[in-house]
Amino acid sequence: MSTAQTEGHFEKLLLKKIRSSIGQAPIPIQFNPEGSRPSEITGTDSVVIRDRRTLARIVLDPDVGFGDAYMEGRIEIQGDLVRILEDAFHAMRSRRKSWYNRMFSGWLQHVQNNTLKGSAANIHHHYDLNNDFYRLWLDSRMVYTCAYFPTPSATLEESQEAKLEHICRKLQLQPGEKVVEAGCGWGALALHMAKHYGVTVRAFNISHEQISYARSQAKKEGITNRIEFVEADYRNISGPFDVFVSVGMLEHVGHEHYSELGSVIHRAIGNSGRGLIHFIGRSRPAPFSAWIRKRIFPGAYVPALREALEVLEPHNYAVLDVENLRLHYAKTLEHWLERYELAVDRVSAMFGPEFVRAWRLYLAGSTASFRAGLLQLFQIVFAGSTCQQIPWTRAHLYAAEAGCEEESQWIHARS
Amino acid sequence: MSTAQTEGHFEKLLLKKIRSSIGQAPIPIQFNPEGSRPSEITGTDSVVIRDRRTLARIVLDPDVGFGDAYMEGRIEIQGDLVRILEDAFHAMRSRRKSWYNRMFSGWLQHVQNNTLKGSAANIHHHYDLNNDFYRLWLDSRMVYTCAYFPTPSATLEESQEAKLEHICRKLQLQPGEKVVEAGCGWGALALHMAKHYGVTVRAFNISHEQISYARSQAKKEGITNRIEFVEADYRNISGPFDVFVSVGMLEHVGHEHYSELGSVIHRAIGNSGRGLIHFIGRSRPAPFSAWIRKRIFPGAYVPALREALEVLEPHNYAVLDVENLRLHYAKTLEHWLERYELAVDRVSAMFGPEFVRAWRLYLAGSTASFRAGLLQLFQIVFAGSTCQQIPWTRAHLYAAEAGCEEESQWIHARS
Repeated sequence: MSTAQTEGHFEKLLLKKIRSSIGQAPIPIQFNPEGSRPSEITGTDSVVIRDRRTLARIVLDPDVGFGDAYMEGRIEIQGDLVRILEDAFHAMRSRRKSWYNRMFSGWLQHVQNNTLKGSAANIHHHYDLNNDFYRLWLDSRMVYTCAYFPTPSATLEESQEAKLEHICRKLQLQPGEKVVEAGCGWGALALHMAKHYGVTVRAFNISHEQISYARSQAKKEGITNRIEFVEADYRNISGPFDVFVSVGMLEHVGHEHYSELGSVIHRAIGNSGRGLIHFIGRSRPAPFSAWIRKRIFPGAYVPALREALEVLEPHNYAVLDVENLRLHYAKTLEHWLERYELAVDRVSAMFGPEFVRAWRLYLAGSTASFRAGLLQLFQIVFAGSTCQQIPWTRAHLYAAEAGCEEESQWIHARS
Repeated sequence: MSTAQTEGHFEKLLLKKIRSSIGQAPIPIQFNPEGSRPSEITGTDSVVIRDRRTLARIVLDPDVGFGDAYMEGRIEIQGDLVRILEDAFHAMRSRRKSWYNRMFSGWLQHVQNNTLKGSAANIHHHYDLNNDFYRLWLDSRMVYTCAYFPTPSATLEESQEAKLEHICRKLQLQPGEKVVEAGCGWGALALHMAKHYGVTVRAFNISHEQISYARSQAKKEGITNRIEFVEADYRNISGPFDVFVSVGMLEHVGHEHYSELGSVIHRAIGNSGRGLIHFIGRSRPAPFSAWIRKRIFPGAYVPALREALEVLEPHNYAVLDVENLRLHYAKTLEHWLERYELAVDRVSAMFGPEFVRAWRLYLAGSTASFRAGLLQLFQIVFAGSTCQQIPWTRAHLYAAEAGCEEESQWIHARS
């Protein structure tokens, strides 16, 4: 190795520990302190660690240590960041007692602190950053959740619209119905539902920046009579509504509040309503990345599908449909990352270079996680025990996509 | 009431108890002992209880008491049996401390006894009755699980074939792949897969009658080279296979054996395979009808969807798709009941009038349960953590149904 002369016994030991914990991943890891001669490995993938303290931090606290060191520029990664992370995730997954497992250990017991006040602070941290920042790399509708790509080559704009449409079809919205949305982002779904499906929407969000933007969009579209954006926590929702929908909020609710969320849903739509929840999930329970929780999403928890069902089960909601769109989230993130990289100069001017690197790692790591199957994206459609609006098949979801004339062929229960 | 003179104080008390427990259901319940003048209520729905002992049995042990009394002819039900049961289920569901709840109380702790020997006895009880009996009212393929009706007016024959096709599409079977089926009934799915998808199938079942029939069908079709029917418990399955499929077996496994089933699946397809389980489920956990367990399905347990996920979660299988087909099972059962009623003389000649009534109640009660949403029918598609064959969307499931030319438009992961 080219940098052997800079590695003492201690550094070698730490490097060995880090290398062995990644298992079979073919990623060269170098120790190459600043000031020493630059790495001779170029043009191929490599991870370059810039100082002795960082070596120790990664061994002691792999997740936060690695993330923060990357953010601070003490680790440099040469090559395709997403692919390198994906290979590392694949390799680490096969090791039981690995760095990867330790990376997540000890975090289960952390308090999520998603009280009304805690949630407000947590959401403010991420979503109130700055609308201009998100505008740099999101689509024109400002949709910050997994898109639905009719084909892998569809554009992000098309696919975010297709996602809104996919959700509306799954919900079988009828003109005049009342819909409540919990966690509405910048309002794209609420606006789409009110505009194209003739429903009235009451949409909740505790991000001030997002709600302000959403209200201005409703004015611009001239649909303020059918849509109300409420700057309040989802726990303030009361009924009655025909439909409950929530896209990308469950991750912020925290597992210990699922029963409360179930009660909110039941208060909103009772036994006769129906709904959809769209969320990042897992195949089995695991704590969320400590680094992501520290730097990106305070209060976040990504549930196993089984855990998410705890929201619905106490109120006897029947699950009608679960769709896993993890490949679509990987693709969405690829688009975001590509747009983000084109805008890093402006991001750096806004928030500085550490922020640029932190968000690069977050977007790349998320892409890799969805590709590798560490994260899943679930859409669950559910209906109350007396709901009469149950589709006969799911063919209506694909009617237009398949290029057929029939717009919808769903049939109500008992018809 | 016309039969007032035959009701003493005790009978009145018992009747009142029974009536109140059904809540708001508009079902007249009469006490009308044999030998007394016949009921004057005709042409409308009514439940006629024939003796004092039956009144007491229903109050003391509602589920088994009612079922056995109906079977023995001590209760007569006038009117549409399915609709009366459905109304009763709806009415009883709204009552917390009701007959309906009591009906199921105390059964959770019952031992399922699905050891290798116990399962064999349990399955023999139901499935080895007689192929001729099932032939009287099943479709020509002898499929004894929920059909998939492309439209509600499709025939049972069409819809059982559509179900086999729907499952094969969900599994994305490719020529040359190896499939293992756990609980194959009379072999219809295994035969369909081998014949139309060019896969080799190893199909397990512990019902001797069914396996014999399935083998003769494979011979008749000339596909014994691609299909093997094994008369053995699912716990004898070993790998490697590309695909695991099980239709209508989970209900017989018993909740305490889910972890074992998960291990069998993992032994069969590892982390790279994919699979589908099709089963009767619920929205929340509840014990299975004690009467059905006593007279129809010993050892059966119908899980909540969340409980069923316990099979897959320990092995990190990703759920790709869950579809609820409960309205299709109600429709399937309507067809079966209609055919059954046309054949009751022959059924009675085979097994006697009590059997006729028991199976009528079972088929009608099941229809009512699926209509009322007490029971659900789930198909879960899942994939191992390194499985590369993940469809891009579900549009391929509906391509032919929607009358389009494209047979399939799924795209492999990473393509």
